[in-house]
Amino acid sequence: MPNNPKTRDITTPTARRLTEYLLILEELMERSVTVVSSKELAEAFGNTPSQVRQDLFRLSETGRVGQGYSTGTLARSIRETLGTHIAKNLVIVGCGMVGRAIAAHVPFDRYGLNLIGMFDINPNIIGETIENLPVSPIEDLGDFIERRDVLIASLSVPTLVAQEMTDKLVARGVRGVLNFTRARLKLPANVSVVNSQMICQFTRLGFMIDHFDTVGHKEKSE
Amino acid sequence: MPNNPKTRDITTPTARRLTEYLLILEELMERSVTVVSSKELAEAFGNTPSQVRQDLFRLSETGRVGQGYSTGTLARSIRETLGTHIAKNLVIVGCGMVGRAIAAHVPFDRYGLNLIGMFDINPNIIGETIENLPVSPIEDLGDFIERRDVLIASLSVPTLVAQEMTDKLVARGVRGVLNFTRARLKLPANVSVVNSQMICQFTRLGFMIDHFDTVGHKEKSE
Repeated sequence: MPNNPKTRDITTPTARRLTEYLLILEELMERSVTVVSSKELAEAFGNTPSQVRQDLFRLSETGRVGQGYSTGTLARSIRETLGTHIAKNLVIVGCGMVGRAIAAHVPFDRYGLNLIGMFDINPNIIGETIENLPVSPIEDLGDFIERRDVLIASLSVPTLVAQEMTDKLVARGVRGVLNFTRARLKLPANVSVVNSQMICQFTRLGFMIDHFDTVGHKEKSE
Repeated sequence: MPNNPKTRDITTPTARRLTEYLLILEELMERSVTVVSSKELAEAFGNTPSQVRQDLFRLSETGRVGQGYSTGTLARSIRETLGTHIAKNLVIVGCGMVGRAIAAHVPFDRYGLNLIGMFDINPNIIGETIENLPVSPIEDLGDFIERRDVLIASLSVPTLVAQEMTDKLVARGVRGVLNFTRARLKLPANVSVVNSQMICQFTRLGFMIDHFDTVGHKEKSE
């Protein structure tokens, strides 16, 4: 993938929008809609048709059909560009309410992500089964990462131990951390991080309510 | 706030970055750090010092001190710009695992948001107490919104009923929806929405891992 010259041009904000177009396309496909226009995609996403066309131009194939795009072809092409057809193993570290909600509600398997382990430090929940996976003790995590080629860790541990835990994950081979804690993680340059602080989303929503006349009512991911 | 000409210039992506700067500043303040440079903020956030300076330039006050900014003054100024000093009432609709995790882990009260109600349709959990709030039946939600001036709804109901529920919320006065479902909600122009599909964050992380040499390892919110 990194060798495709067009894919190389894709920035993280573009990847963010492509992911959301993919969800829109899948919803359309569930409703048996086979063709969609850039205008319809823009309306569903909350941006402009020209931005949509500019983003889709970076795909190797868009399934153009007359005035629109084939939903199936476009979805497949976005998946290839995002690399969701290349399976990645993932673990959840911290099985409190956030970790459990993620395990139960995020449709990993539909996007090339294999949730293969749940880990916690609390002896009261170790051994419990969450979404068909046993909760394993945190001491086993390092070996598990190496043995099972775990690339991604979803981190929902207490903020105070987040950096220490991250250092251990990275030392054993994790290449990406989805950080649900409030810590700003320090990471080597070859390890990626996405911060997901829900309070930021609520605060932004509050700002949009106060300023909807100037900022618009849908969030744009650019 | 909308009358402040500089605040008027703030776009949602800027508001997004300001919120994250605020979290960084608060972490620094907890560690008794009183001054921070644009370079340090940029390193913690994952962007450039010039972007930081450009964002902060839009604030009415930045607390410039020599080479840096006063963490306390800057944090206060961001809060005023984002409007977190103006309290907003909020309810959680759908008290499954996602709704519970939000109630338990999002520090609403520190950011001017009052969580005043939890609602669900399931008779087995109505009456249960979550974070000191009783779970109320969904039939009471409309009157509650009007009576208590609820501005924001955090929506974690099944995707299939998300639009129907949103229509009811909006009809009774809700002005902003944080949408944790997979539905693309249709909303009137004076109602704001932030979509929070966790799978998108995981997919982006996967993309960043595959392309870290070209896209960098921290997500930029521009």
